[in-house]
Amino acid sequence: MTAGMFDSFITRHWFSEEAKEIWSDLQTLQAWLDVEAALAQAQGRLGVIPADAVPAITEASRHERFDTERLSRDIAHAQHPFVPVLRQMEEFAGEPAAGYIHWGATTQNIFDTGVALQMRRTQALIDTSLATAEISLSELALAHRDTLQAGRTHGQHALPMTFGFKVTGWLEEVRRDRVRLRDRVSPSFVACLGGAIGTFAAMGEKGPAVEAEMARILGLEPAVLPMRSSFDRATDYFSALALLAGTAEKIAQDVVFMQRTEIGEVEEAFHMGKVGSSTMAQKRNPSTALLLISLCRLLSARLPLMLGSMVRMDEGDSSATNVADVAVPEIAILGASVAATLTRLVTGLVVHVDAMKRNVEITNGLIVSEAAMMQLSDRLGRHKAHHMLYEAAQRSVMEGVPFTQAISEHPEMAGHDMVTLDTAGYTGCSETIVDTLAKNTNP
Amino acid sequence: MTAGMFDSFITRHWFSEEAKEIWSDLQTLQAWLDVEAALAQAQGRLGVIPADAVPAITEASRHERFDTERLSRDIAHAQHPFVPVLRQMEEFAGEPAAGYIHWGATTQNIFDTGVALQMRRTQALIDTSLATAEISLSELALAHRDTLQAGRTHGQHALPMTFGFKVTGWLEEVRRDRVRLRDRVSPSFVACLGGAIGTFAAMGEKGPAVEAEMARILGLEPAVLPMRSSFDRATDYFSALALLAGTAEKIAQDVVFMQRTEIGEVEEAFHMGKVGSSTMAQKRNPSTALLLISLCRLLSARLPLMLGSMVRMDEGDSSATNVADVAVPEIAILGASVAATLTRLVTGLVVHVDAMKRNVEITNGLIVSEAAMMQLSDRLGRHKAHHMLYEAAQRSVMEGVPFTQAISEHPEMAGHDMVTLDTAGYTGCSETIVDTLAKNTNP
Amino acid sequence: MTAGMFDSFITRHWFSEEAKEIWSDLQTLQAWLDVEAALAQAQGRLGVIPADAVPAITEASRHERFDTERLSRDIAHAQHPFVPVLRQMEEFAGEPAAGYIHWGATTQNIFDTGVALQMRRTQALIDTSLATAEISLSELALAHRDTLQAGRTHGQHALPMTFGFKVTGWLEEVRRDRVRLRDRVSPSFVACLGGAIGTFAAMGEKGPAVEAEMARILGLEPAVLPMRSSFDRATDYFSALALLAGTAEKIAQDVVFMQRTEIGEVEEAFHMGKVGSSTMAQKRNPSTALLLISLCRLLSARLPLMLGSMVRMDEGDSSATNVADVAVPEIAILGASVAATLTRLVTGLVVHVDAMKRNVEITNGLIVSEAAMMQLSDRLGRHKAHHMLYEAAQRSVMEGVPFTQAISEHPEMAGHDMVTLDTAGYTGCSETIVDTLAKNTNP
Amino acid sequence: MTAGMFDSFITRHWFSEEAKEIWSDLQTLQAWLDVEAALAQAQGRLGVIPADAVPAITEASRHERFDTERLSRDIAHAQHPFVPVLRQMEEFAGEPAAGYIHWGATTQNIFDTGVALQMRRTQALIDTSLATAEISLSELALAHRDTLQAGRTHGQHALPMTFGFKVTGWLEEVRRDRVRLRDRVSPSFVACLGGAIGTFAAMGEKGPAVEAEMARILGLEPAVLPMRSSFDRATDYFSALALLAGTAEKIAQDVVFMQRTEIGEVEEAFHMGKVGSSTMAQKRNPSTALLLISLCRLLSARLPLMLGSMVRMDEGDSSATNVADVAVPEIAILGASVAATLTRLVTGLVVHVDAMKRNVEITNGLIVSEAAMMQLSDRLGRHKAHHMLYEAAQRSVMEGVPFTQAISEHPEMAGHDMVTLDTAGYTGCSETIVDTLAKNTNP
Repeated sequence: MTAGMFDSFITRHWFSEEAKEIWSDLQTLQAWLDVEAALAQAQGRLGVIPADAVPAITEASRHERFDTERLSRDIAHAQHPFVPVLRQMEEFAGEPAAGYIHWGATTQNIFDTGVALQMRRTQALIDTSLATAEISLSELALAHRDTLQAGRTHGQHALPMTFGFKVTGWLEEVRRDRVRLRDRVSPSFVACLGGAIGTFAAMGEKGPAVEAEMARILGLEPAVLPMRSSFDRATDYFSALALLAGTAEKIAQDVVFMQRTEIGEVEEAFHMGKVGSSTMAQKRNPSTALLLISLCRLLSARLPLMLGSMVRMDEGDSSATNVADVAVPEIAILGASVAATLTRLVTGLVVHVDAMKRNVEITNGLIVSEAAMMQLSDRLGRHKAHHMLYEAAQRSVMEGVPFTQAISEHPEMAGHDMVTLDTAGYTGCSETIVDTLAKNTNP
Repeated sequence: MTAGMFDSFITRHWFSEEAKEIWSDLQTLQAWLDVEAALAQAQGRLGVIPADAVPAITEASRHERFDTERLSRDIAHAQHPFVPVLRQMEEFAGEPAAGYIHWGATTQNIFDTGVALQMRRTQALIDTSLATAEISLSELALAHRDTLQAGRTHGQHALPMTFGFKVTGWLEEVRRDRVRLRDRVSPSFVACLGGAIGTFAAMGEKGPAVEAEMARILGLEPAVLPMRSSFDRATDYFSALALLAGTAEKIAQDVVFMQRTEIGEVEEAFHMGKVGSSTMAQKRNPSTALLLISLCRLLSARLPLMLGSMVRMDEGDSSATNVADVAVPEIAILGASVAATLTRLVTGLVVHVDAMKRNVEITNGLIVSEAAMMQLSDRLGRHKAHHMLYEAAQRSVMEGVPFTQAISEHPEMAGHDMVTLDTAGYTGCSETIVDTLAKNTNP
Repeated sequence: MTAGMFDSFITRHWFSEEAKEIWSDLQTLQAWLDVEAALAQAQGRLGVIPADAVPAITEASRHERFDTERLSRDIAHAQHPFVPVLRQMEEFAGEPAAGYIHWGATTQNIFDTGVALQMRRTQALIDTSLATAEISLSELALAHRDTLQAGRTHGQHALPMTFGFKVTGWLEEVRRDRVRLRDRVSPSFVACLGGAIGTFAAMGEKGPAVEAEMARILGLEPAVLPMRSSFDRATDYFSALALLAGTAEKIAQDVVFMQRTEIGEVEEAFHMGKVGSSTMAQKRNPSTALLLISLCRLLSARLPLMLGSMVRMDEGDSSATNVADVAVPEIAILGASVAATLTRLVTGLVVHVDAMKRNVEITNGLIVSEAAMMQLSDRLGRHKAHHMLYEAAQRSVMEGVPFTQAISEHPEMAGHDMVTLDTAGYTGCSETIVDTLAKNTNP
Repeated sequence: MTAGMFDSFITRHWFSEEAKEIWSDLQTLQAWLDVEAALAQAQGRLGVIPADAVPAITEASRHERFDTERLSRDIAHAQHPFVPVLRQMEEFAGEPAAGYIHWGATTQNIFDTGVALQMRRTQALIDTSLATAEISLSELALAHRDTLQAGRTHGQHALPMTFGFKVTGWLEEVRRDRVRLRDRVSPSFVACLGGAIGTFAAMGEKGPAVEAEMARILGLEPAVLPMRSSFDRATDYFSALALLAGTAEKIAQDVVFMQRTEIGEVEEAFHMGKVGSSTMAQKRNPSTALLLISLCRLLSARLPLMLGSMVRMDEGDSSATNVADVAVPEIAILGASVAATLTRLVTGLVVHVDAMKRNVEITNGLIVSEAAMMQLSDRLGRHKAHHMLYEAAQRSVMEGVPFTQAISEHPEMAGHDMVTLDTAGYTGCSETIVDTLAKNTNP
């Protein structure tokens, strides 16, 4: 039994299984071992360690061989997270190879490079999710290119638009998130060597070349200056994840609102057996959207931890790296879970076109008061037109008089032709924007 | 011209004028001078400084005498915020009194005690606002003791209630906030003396007695152990302000939702001349509620700064106290502004009883499915009843069949009497809770 | 294998085992079942459900009977965290008792009350840790009542003090934290009933009495107004935990500094076998203090989540409660871990009295420049004395001239007796403060 | 008198004067007017408004003409921040031109585009500061290419390095910050048009072309899809500013530590007249570094506000944009102030080479235990070598025996040649890294 959110039977289904696998204990151990193996291989090629020590070290770098219970006990006793791993690895490799394991490296080199490998895999998951989200959003936008819907600002009807236009806005933001994440993953997660303080002291002149070769083997860029106290690169990527969370939370909140009982414009995917309440049989809650909001908040709340973790004492500071050690896996899993949940939400969305149409008409024309103003501005000037329509609109709201009547009865309208209030005709560039932007999805 | 939110012509009206006055430069200077005067008086009485130095020091402690332009220049040059204040004060007092100003104190003693005086005044403002809010909420709850409204969970209709019940929930939380703030202000903001590191070194044995007497003069409690690196007391009060912000944001968000164009259940105070948009004449936005949300977020975002400011190096650390120097006035003004805006919002709220009634009925009875379940549980058992109503409710939603019909046609109902769906009769203890809790408001 | 910090073999030893047990899946399930049992017992006594249904329900409320694998699958399918629990419980109880389980309650009632039970147990752990910390700190303060040490502000020597005085400052803050937590746990974590929206609709008039009786059985206070959207009470306690984290991080940072290689004044407990580095054999890192800093930051970073979770839509909002569902156990475990680690740190602290003495003397008297100023103020006035000593001190620093010499050679000193620079004699009330405050520890 | 940190006489000198000028009320007003003028010019060229209205509108777009007192009063009354600006502008332009001001735009279009203009100017300031910082750091690194210093991890001596190596680490991070900010400013701050909800409804088909032309006139990129509810672009830049704050805080913290009384390795610029304390004449505090830490924290604490402001209801949400309206100028000014203060700090840094040398030697060789291990690993294997040196090092620490003696007396050394402990020779690639990376500064 467990106390953590990723494993608890209550909440484990909230989170990406693939991402949890990438960051599981065993895969974390394996990532470390992959780095140790690559280090030995690089050092063997460059003559830093004897070439014939390499096969035994490589063979010792398989997580299946480890006694993890013993690892856990030894880590607690040593109060060091990696020396006990080395101990077992040395036993597997045997002398003399054992003596060349971890040659010239420091624990944090291994950890940082291991994290780089795991983050690359996580980013692949995220990118795949977002590619699907883009396709779904693109299809949704095109399908509803002409579906009339009320545009709302500050919680009040503003102007009409089409639902496709709204979805294109979501799509564009998701696209930018995806590009940011793709562009930043390589510079953010690099292969680090350099030893205790980054000077490559234990490897001499060949240090930078070993780092470069190790990086090449692992498919990463080398750090070049592997300062352990520099954390801006990784934090840059985590910031981009926090932006994704901002995007996803905005979309989810829109869905929750549009699914409100009184609004009813969209509904998230439902299946018989999905339960809304232990007592209220009728409940069909937007539970995916609400869960997505929660995941986004859990992710964003961890960004200050990462920014704080940039401030490291001198050449190394475990008060900062401990925080990263636990928060990075959390952010990574949350990032993948946000991407997956967002994709599930937008892919399954049911749209109620009739409700959209019904809602856009409930103000009896007030929603196109701007259209009236643009028409009247030519006749009365913009200021007077706004003023007159303001009075007519307030009278319409307060006395329940239809807006057209309130306009036509306003003293300033005497002698002027009546304005046209055409809701469906006042969607501006909604449709052409869908045509231009929703079509080019490049997964 | 200014770049700060409190003074900018664009935003200055968002903030409590009284609180800004308390924290204005001149009043801050005066608070420091009040502390210096009280210190001299206490030391005169206890024989630490010559009694005849006290009148001149007291007389020098009036902000009107200061050249603030010169102060500002000297502070920038000295890179010290208080030594230039002492310099002018010494000139006003003249020798020999000048030699006894600030005797044995350190700058932070004066600043912390000055802040205590200003926070007590701010708390008085906040308490007065919240007292008014309590009265308004109490009246609103009682007036709508029986006003039927849909209770909503997860954005969906759940059960009927009365609006008075909802408001009583707001009231209870505001009451708790008010009590917390009242209880905590005295222990949180104390009179501090103790000199450079809190040992009273420059005052000898009499130090603690001087602190106690100074505190008495200023109407504060003494710190007793005036560690400059201890900031938990003040932060405790700021946490209580953040809780008030949480309460206020929740209420404001409820109002924004209830004022939604499609919902229309409440509306915040409106006056002709209030403008919603530069182009959309019809807009009547819930701008007070939206502003309140903004203020709450601005306040809450500063709590991590205060918590961070608790972590101070050794016996004093300006990297932490600089942060408090600017963030404490901001939090104080925001706290008073949140309290005032909340009070304005709830005091002016217009309630549309008809819209509440219209909305509660739009699900044709689904909102009381629980009532049906409680009736059927006796006959079918709770589980079966839930299951049957779940199927009937989903059929009602998906096929548009009225809920009563879907229930009566369900196979499990064969041979059973039909259930009663009485929305107005299923408000539970809504009314008695209003009676019990909304009546006892004690401003 | 797991991906969570509490269970990972790399980090699990950072966290309180007892607290993890309290918040383990099985104990969480048991807490829910305890609430269901107490609810049934209360309802049986008050005649809300048949008294003879109670024993079967009570008997069904044992976690050992549950198939947790099936639970996990069903929860994911239903997308509801509790209905599958009820399903198994009904099977254990059998008809007709099964029909009276969870009577009139909603899921969140059970969860909130379960959390209350778990938080009470966690608070007991925390209180026990802090009691030990108080005793250790008290003993440490008394033992070093007279141990001379440099007091430092802004990273620079300020005045001499005793180490006992410093520790008394830590002690006082820990005491305040402990009192806050004790005072707030009961009002913060209450028994909640009230059903779907808090109106007790499904229980009629007897609802509040049932809540009170259920609370009595569980040893909790009743909520009285069990609004599901009110989260200020719990957040108040979490704020107090964040204050404890602020205190602990400050103390830990002091220890890290005092253990710096060049300072060497304290050292945390060391045992042979504790490893500082995989390559640097000499390393004796303050790893407990650094870990404590990390834990404190992990805790504090979660407070904004809790404050954000106060802002709940309408009468219930899973976007907010989901966050609390995962963050509350994390904060609770972190709180207990912070308390335990703080206690371990201060209990094992080794003090190097000689190093303290060596350091306090390295400025050759500059550290008591204030003492010189207080003596000279009588002769020259405070301002002139400060000015003269400022010049002498800067000359001492820049030219390497001893401070006493720089003073005696200063033109202003002509004709005046030399001042006395007695470092050990200028500790102010350090010793009497230890006597007064460190003696009265009341665990 | 004012209550804001930027204008208060106590703190105003902390902040960049140039940045405050950019974000002053009057310059903000002028930025809005510049956008209105560019809009009119673009619309005149594209035939959306009469070309002869443009000169009058342009002429009305000068802040000097405005009555700002009246503006402030009208804004408070209308509860709208821009309609009163339009009112005065219309008066200056006169009819018929007045009727074509703000044609088809919404307030937020003007505000967002105005912010874009102001942020571009702020970024120019920041870039200039960072260019200077780069030069200073580069010179500092080269000057101290060979200056021996203790490398420290976890607060303990780790390995020797050179101070130039350390500074090169700072330099590389500052460089990355500078590149990020330069790359992101253009995509982050774009010209927005689109009207009330972004559909260009009031401008018809020509809307996008008007936006593009307006952007061209102002030297910005067009938004293309000017969704008012999309805030990811701006937030991306603010994240990069938060990374700069992380970098600067790390450097400042290093300086504070190295200036510690006992360490004394660097000292920030001092001038006679700079005061450290009102009572302790000797104090030479690292006040610039401490202030820089404070500014960084004030900046970082605002990032969550920006991330929160991404979550906007529907097509527009003043609860989010109000927050941005006040927090964006604050972040911008803080960003420029962090850059300027960082530059001042590193440019004036005084280095005490002797202190660095003294400190690196205080462990009598323990600092090069890794060198010993690398030498012994060949003879004993890495594991045994670590173990033997661990015992020797602990004996050296606990018994005060010199490390070399402890090694030579260790039983495992029997029969082996003694190792060489050459501190100055164990700086690894410190010098070549300085040569490679510190030389290519390209301001």
